[in-house]
Amino acid sequence: MLDALPRRERANFLNGLSGFKSANLLGTADAHGRTNLALMSSVFHVGAAPPLLGLLIRPHTVPRHSLENLLASGQYTLNHVDEAMHERAHLTSARHPRTTSEFEAVGLTPAWSTSLSAPYVAESPVQIGLHLREHHTLDCNGCALVIGEVRELRLAEDARAADGQLDLQALGVVAISGLDEYHRTESLGRRPYARAPADSDD
Amino acid sequence: MLDALPRRERANFLNGLSGFKSANLLGTADAHGRTNLALMSSVFHVGAAPPLLGLLIRPHTVPRHSLENLLASGQYTLNHVDEAMHERAHLTSARHPRTTSEFEAVGLTPAWSTSLSAPYVAESPVQIGLHLREHHTLDCNGCALVIGEVRELRLAEDARAADGQLDLQALGVVAISGLDEYHRTESLGRRPYARAPADSDD
Repeated sequence: MLDALPRRERANFLNGLSGFKSANLLGTADAHGRTNLALMSSVFHVGAAPPLLGLLIRPHTVPRHSLENLLASGQYTLNHVDEAMHERAHLTSARHPRTTSEFEAVGLTPAWSTSLSAPYVAESPVQIGLHLREHHTLDCNGCALVIGEVRELRLAEDARAADGQLDLQALGVVAISGLDEYHRTESLGRRPYARAPADSDD
Repeated sequence: MLDALPRRERANFLNGLSGFKSANLLGTADAHGRTNLALMSSVFHVGAAPPLLGLLIRPHTVPRHSLENLLASGQYTLNHVDEAMHERAHLTSARHPRTTSEFEAVGLTPAWSTSLSAPYVAESPVQIGLHLREHHTLDCNGCALVIGEVRELRLAEDARAADGQLDLQALGVVAISGLDEYHRTESLGRRPYARAPADSDD
């Protein structure tokens, strides 16, 4: 089936094949403080202790300035995209000239902390500051896999439930499908911790 | 903030910190044809040509039988979780004894193709057969990163739009937040391909 699809349709299809995706803006700066901002849909959970997030970057696409900045400085931010700014976030994927910051080009606001050299997105409801921990280049297609440790968090105090759960839906965070479709969510509820009839350590 | 959180609350919080996640059932079999099924929320898009999907597995958690099978056979399936079976899918994460297949334990049906040694989930609207391409162990916490090539697809003919886009929402596919919350989605629409005012190759 895949072989029969024209290139563009194949890309559309395969970008949806993993399921719903997270929507995060990757914020970086170069040594001169010039900022870059790139939409990422491949951020994933790696671990809780230490707190680690993974990110896959395709180096031959637009975010290569972001990847260069990230690797050079070792610092970056991930900022959740919400419904109010998802259209502006999407525009960061355009091929902006190197001399233009995507912040300015799309109308989002850089915000700085004293403890990180990369810019946050002021409009984002969940702002995460990371230090680079590990970096692999995939043999299969040259993608960069980046693992970072969470070093700073900027979010509303009431964004967490009593048991720690982050209420992404209440924050208006969106999910992505394919290359260009955005979704709000409606919770089906939380499921209890799953136990087998005879729970063992096997 | 993170350091002050008790272990369980910290795990709840950090599992939601990447944003909304895909929901896939990983199907594997051992050399004797005994099946395993494990819920995964860390499948991500890697590339369209060749068609590649990534998957992060925490080896010290329940899915280690699945990881052993996957590495030994080099073949596995990923099956999207929809609203109708998300409760059964969640139950695969219980600690079932090795002699029990999660298919049987939770009430899902294994389905076989002649070209793959791993079982599909008959109830799933998008069934993907993969061959292992590449495997990394992360230095930072020992997680296994698995890259597979899509070799077989089983889905309804009308699941794709004319331009290739896979309509996950129409298929009832769910998104996950945190460790245990499931969501249906409501589309905000597709955004046009983003172009800068002066599109260049810079």
